[in-house]
Amino acid sequence: MSGYQNRILRVNLTDRTFREESLSEELIHGYIGGRGFGAKWLYDDLKAKCDPLGEDNEVIFIAGPLAGTTAQSFARWKAIFKSPLTGGYFMSSGGGYFAPELKYAGFDAVIIRGKADRPVYVSINDGKYELRDASYLWGLGCDDTHILIREELRDPKVRMACIGPAGENGVKYAGIFSDRRAAGRGGGGAVMGAKNLKAVAVRGRKQIDLADQAAFSAAVKEQVSRCRAAPRFKSFSQTGTQTPEFTNLLGIFPTRNFRGGVLPNLEKMDGSVFNEIRVRNTSCHNCMVHCGSISKINQGKYKGSWSEGPEYETIWAFSGPMLCSDIGLTVAADRMCDNLGLDSISTGVTIGFAYELYEKGLITREDTEGLELTYGNDAPVLTLIRQIALCEGFGAVLAQGTREAARHIGKGSEQYAIHVKGLELPAYDPRGAKAHGLNYITLNLGADHCAGYAGQEIFGAPFKGKAVDRFAVEGKGEITKWNQDDKAIWNLGIMCNFATGYIDLELYGRLLAAATGRQEFADTNYLWLVGERVFNLERMFNVREGFGRKDDVFPERILKESMPDGHSAGHVFEAEPLLKDYYRVRGWDPKTGIPTADKLRALGLDFTMGA
Amino acid sequence: MSGYQNRILRVNLTDRTFREESLSEELIHGYIGGRGFGAKWLYDDLKAKCDPLGEDNEVIFIAGPLAGTTAQSFARWKAIFKSPLTGGYFMSSGGGYFAPELKYAGFDAVIIRGKADRPVYVSINDGKYELRDASYLWGLGCDDTHILIREELRDPKVRMACIGPAGENGVKYAGIFSDRRAAGRGGGGAVMGAKNLKAVAVRGRKQIDLADQAAFSAAVKEQVSRCRAAPRFKSFSQTGTQTPEFTNLLGIFPTRNFRGGVLPNLEKMDGSVFNEIRVRNTSCHNCMVHCGSISKINQGKYKGSWSEGPEYETIWAFSGPMLCSDIGLTVAADRMCDNLGLDSISTGVTIGFAYELYEKGLITREDTEGLELTYGNDAPVLTLIRQIALCEGFGAVLAQGTREAARHIGKGSEQYAIHVKGLELPAYDPRGAKAHGLNYITLNLGADHCAGYAGQEIFGAPFKGKAVDRFAVEGKGEITKWNQDDKAIWNLGIMCNFATGYIDLELYGRLLAAATGRQEFADTNYLWLVGERVFNLERMFNVREGFGRKDDVFPERILKESMPDGHSAGHVFEAEPLLKDYYRVRGWDPKTGIPTADKLRALGLDFTMGA
Repeated sequence: MSGYQNRILRVNLTDRTFREESLSEELIHGYIGGRGFGAKWLYDDLKAKCDPLGEDNEVIFIAGPLAGTTAQSFARWKAIFKSPLTGGYFMSSGGGYFAPELKYAGFDAVIIRGKADRPVYVSINDGKYELRDASYLWGLGCDDTHILIREELRDPKVRMACIGPAGENGVKYAGIFSDRRAAGRGGGGAVMGAKNLKAVAVRGRKQIDLADQAAFSAAVKEQVSRCRAAPRFKSFSQTGTQTPEFTNLLGIFPTRNFRGGVLPNLEKMDGSVFNEIRVRNTSCHNCMVHCGSISKINQGKYKGSWSEGPEYETIWAFSGPMLCSDIGLTVAADRMCDNLGLDSISTGVTIGFAYELYEKGLITREDTEGLELTYGNDAPVLTLIRQIALCEGFGAVLAQGTREAARHIGKGSEQYAIHVKGLELPAYDPRGAKAHGLNYITLNLGADHCAGYAGQEIFGAPFKGKAVDRFAVEGKGEITKWNQDDKAIWNLGIMCNFATGYIDLELYGRLLAAATGRQEFADTNYLWLVGERVFNLERMFNVREGFGRKDDVFPERILKESMPDGHSAGHVFEAEPLLKDYYRVRGWDPKTGIPTADKLRALGLDFTMGA
Repeated sequence: MSGYQNRILRVNLTDRTFREESLSEELIHGYIGGRGFGAKWLYDDLKAKCDPLGEDNEVIFIAGPLAGTTAQSFARWKAIFKSPLTGGYFMSSGGGYFAPELKYAGFDAVIIRGKADRPVYVSINDGKYELRDASYLWGLGCDDTHILIREELRDPKVRMACIGPAGENGVKYAGIFSDRRAAGRGGGGAVMGAKNLKAVAVRGRKQIDLADQAAFSAAVKEQVSRCRAAPRFKSFSQTGTQTPEFTNLLGIFPTRNFRGGVLPNLEKMDGSVFNEIRVRNTSCHNCMVHCGSISKINQGKYKGSWSEGPEYETIWAFSGPMLCSDIGLTVAADRMCDNLGLDSISTGVTIGFAYELYEKGLITREDTEGLELTYGNDAPVLTLIRQIALCEGFGAVLAQGTREAARHIGKGSEQYAIHVKGLELPAYDPRGAKAHGLNYITLNLGADHCAGYAGQEIFGAPFKGKAVDRFAVEGKGEITKWNQDDKAIWNLGIMCNFATGYIDLELYGRLLAAATGRQEFADTNYLWLVGERVFNLERMFNVREGFGRKDDVFPERILKESMPDGHSAGHVFEAEPLLKDYYRVRGWDPKTGIPTADKLRALGLDFTMGA
């Protein structure tokens, strides 16, 4: 078998057993790889309603069939699990060098269930594997964990996915980290922490066979030359996503807990400022985009702070929510989140939620133990990040995420918890980008921006050859479905979202087919079928958990408070007509939000019916 | 040429030039290597009275002729420079993997002078070298510096010697660090910082030729088997130096700024407690002793802290001086010193000096900005370490070392500055170990314990077949000279002090001769000649700077206040008779403390006469 290593490792931490499995023909044909495999495994393996922080949940680490090859931008990996933040299906994505190394170690995936009786980490080296003691690593940040595991294994080239104190302490939005690259969202770090699993460390020298080396090389060559020739490639490969002025101009840069859409003084942290503090670009394995960067603050009160990033979402998460515009804060907070093991988006939104409660008097200095959460005051932010990760002080409340924190605080604070299905909203206000918002509200993950990003609204990408009005309601069901299924397709590969713009499905299909020898993967219609299948399977996972139309909801604010400022002023999010259109296009029952039997049969998902 | 790479690299940071040199026959014959080369180069290169923090000072990094070979415990390197703390010759020693890697990179030594106009680091890779920008690394700790340089060079196997913020900020006792191994003493970090030199990074794959491979292998085999058979090898290789109870029992574990010699509650941090927090042993390159260890604190207020070490000196530095006995503090402080780039001995002694001044009212809470430096209160210690490294608050005063800090504070505080020649005393009170003290007072470095350690007094090692009375004055001149010259001999190799007990000069000479092809090195009489030569050359360096008998002095406390407690109670240090005896044995003028012309001629040091 080619492209794949045809080997997955199942680890049961409870009884400390390992089991190897190969990939079935049916799985490969029906789900291609990456997110497809993960969705199928999670659906098959998990009992309905299992505790996300219990033994029965799994964390599935997956590298795609193109990871570790010379094809560009396929180094991403997925962590797939039932989320403690949403209670539903979750897929979190990380970059760096972990996925290729997992392949070189001989595996396409590692599936971990159970719970160890004391802290452990999984070490995989060239096809061999073992559980190793991680007691001494418990409590340490992600940086130190990387250093000490590499030293213990006497191999500085070991790669790993690990958690920080946040994951150990059960912070609901704790992420999983690999060399400062985060699979941040959804609480995978908390799932690992609950399993007493500090890390999965991988290293190997195994080959990845290719079915048709000549065709593969030709396709890679074409990818590289298209990439070089693409109009926006050069600038994006320099700045990455460090251009928050983009969305601020559109009036969808959320401020004050999603009240406004324009940050004053954003010029203090626009692209030109990031250009000044950029030390160098960084990249994942075999990626010519190298969108990442090391940033270093050389003046002001955050002098000496540095991080890899911050990326757009993190720039926003520590500015808009608390009305700060100090580039130093974003860099320092980014690094703290990376090291303590926190999702920066949920961290920033949850802190911003607390700022609004403080303003409204729903919490006071007594609750915050003296911290003054007044807009524009950045002083409490790093303290709160630390308290959240360690579940200390007021941080213990915020560590539950906005939804649970609001339940805890009460007093009507629930209305200020800005999330979908428990997952905090990212840095695009849905009122000024309706398909983007429709994606947030319908996505199986909750409000995630990656898995259905509406580039048509944010960057003016055409849809079927036409420009899209970002405020319009009409036609957004089709666009949203397209965006979601499209992203599902790329997630099979697993290709980075920042590189899909320099390729197309046809060339992607050729890469997949040349690597794996599966000619059906070169058929773009087939890719669309599998993309839709995977998206619907994830939906059915959630349906089995009790999710439905009732969960495809935004907080009232997004629906009823019109945007007060900027170039999205006057708009709300028209959920009813948008959802109606979307369900129709999806072939889902408009009352329940559940895929119809016909739709499931058409997608080969009969097995989910009546579950 | 064998053993040596026969190549040294001279870097002038001012004009950014490099020059390669080979080793002369005279140098090799006369000085053998390591400390010998360094002493000769520093003597030849430096103008008298040059500013230690000016362009004319050098930092010389040296690997020994046996570094990188299969011989055990030769991975140490020397940093040799004129000290900003003492104003005299200094040699600091580090371990880890830097020395072998420097050899593999093609060089025996790197000699750096001048001053860069902005932060740089030197990168050496397989015989090639360059200066690289280090602006983005300025302000970062040693850990982050290691991470980012390795990432920048895209090679996780790069080794380096670097400084932290302490060195950048000119802390007089800032050290040089390589993977948490410190060449801590004497302020080499400040010398590098003054040169805008953040690091020297090395990597290579070059062979090290051996003159007589068969003889060398046989000698290594003998070394290994002797090591395994040695009575104390097994226990020492487990505990390393984490047995502070040893000296506490002797009553020479200095407390309250060298007033007492016994720490109450030492059982809270004796060897058995360290056994409990030891995660694993660590070692330098090719060293079966593996005396190092990772320690991790699992309870109490320092829970989660870890460090590599702490070694005996650091255990003491953050306990005895401030009358604390919290193992957590020693671990946390150790790690802070390693990361911020501070010598833990001088840091602890300087803080302990402040504790006494605070007790005596010579400084108050106003001076310390609210810190309460009362005995037994550990709360201010980590704060002070940070302030010292950053030269902030009261730390800016303490960053000058006890001698200069006392001058700054005045009010008679000079008498409480416990140093020799500006170098703070280590963890053995001279009043209960006279040869050990005589070494402190006469050593060219100032009060260093390594370069003339009196194992006869501390561990009961016999001298010339006889037991030694540690309190006796008689005969200590001869013992001290022997200890100093003996250490100088091992420092030519460069062998670790913790491994010389499992070998002897005869076998060491065989290793040197087999590696280098120099038969004279196998002659132990010749080794003694060179050891004495090097020690005297260092003395002449200091003489040229104006040092003499007047600088071979202890603070009054050591001379006049008799030890109040423990098994050294009632003793003082009898400097006059001890020094008289020592100068006689050394062949130095008893009035000036300067080597006589006859002595210099006998040692082949005529060139230093009249300098």
